[in-house]
Amino acid sequence: MSLDGFIATEDDDLSWLSKVEREGEDYGYEEFNDSVDTYIVGRRTYEIVCGFCDGAFPPAERHSCYVITRTPRQKENGVTFYTENLKKLLEELRQDEGKNIYCDGGAEIVKLLMEDNLIDEFRISVIPIMLGSGKRLFKGGTPMMDLKALPVVEYDSGLIQLRYERLGPS
Amino acid sequence: MSLDGFIATEDDDLSWLSKVEREGEDYGYEEFNDSVDTYIVGRRTYEIVCGFCDGAFPPAERHSCYVITRTPRQKENGVTFYTENLKKLLEELRQDEGKNIYCDGGAEIVKLLMEDNLIDEFRISVIPIMLGSGKRLFKGGTPMMDLKALPVVEYDSGLIQLRYERLGPS
Repeated sequence: MSLDGFIATEDDDLSWLSKVEREGEDYGYEEFNDSVDTYIVGRRTYEIVCGFCDGAFPPAERHSCYVITRTPRQKENGVTFYTENLKKLLEELRQDEGKNIYCDGGAEIVKLLMEDNLIDEFRISVIPIMLGSGKRLFKGGTPMMDLKALPVVEYDSGLIQLRYERLGPS
Repeated sequence: MSLDGFIATEDDDLSWLSKVEREGEDYGYEEFNDSVDTYIVGRRTYEIVCGFCDGAFPPAERHSCYVITRTPRQKENGVTFYTENLKKLLEELRQDEGKNIYCDGGAEIVKLLMEDNLIDEFRISVIPIMLGSGKRLFKGGTPMMDLKALPVVEYDSGLIQLRYERLGPS
């Protein structure tokens, strides 16, 4: 997110992210991605990724993928569209021990997850910019939650990665 | 602010800040305060501080103080109430070389300052909590601004202090 808490401009512009693009630097993404077995994403983010990738959805090559959407849809790109309650999906997935579930993309899905206290760990990459306005990562309307700060990772580009564990409802 | 960007709950509760209260730890406040000669604060924050301090306003003992307000008011507590344009005040103050001006408190004043690109340095203390809702530090509706990340300071309590310099409009 930007320092002021936005993940996109009002018109979904993400070009400001190029500010921290560095050859060979993925900000721990691959390592994190390797630890993940299930990937859950919102419908908007899914479509943005497909738009960048000529209609393909690369995460499905490595993970079991679910797209959260209100509109039922046939499986495509190796992705399952899920219209039911997100909490129910996570409870089902968590029955298999050791599942690392990566929920990506967008304020909608973050809000759904936070409403039900379903996030165990937060990794927030703060980009050294104020967007001033746009779409917020944290939309509000969620319960209070106590966190434990984990060590910060600072990158040469100015990107700062904040990591927190959930300590339970505050 | 909380990790999700709030500086108070909807009803101005600040008790969540006690989470990071530590005997003898002021998070660099005194050192920073020593470097300041002029202190500017919003009217709401001014009144909250006076409420905590039996009607007194301690910063006025050390600094030249201005309270930004819409309602003209007689000088009190060593404080000048300023109803004109904040930009004008800062331009006047900056004519004296070496002025370190500390603008404290509240989203209103942050927004006014950001609208006119008047903040040179940001220090944001992130408290390890999600408030979920409340009053935001960054209200939106301000211009885009490029920042340079300075070293992060991590405290045992979990408070993380982010520091940025303004690089000019992005």
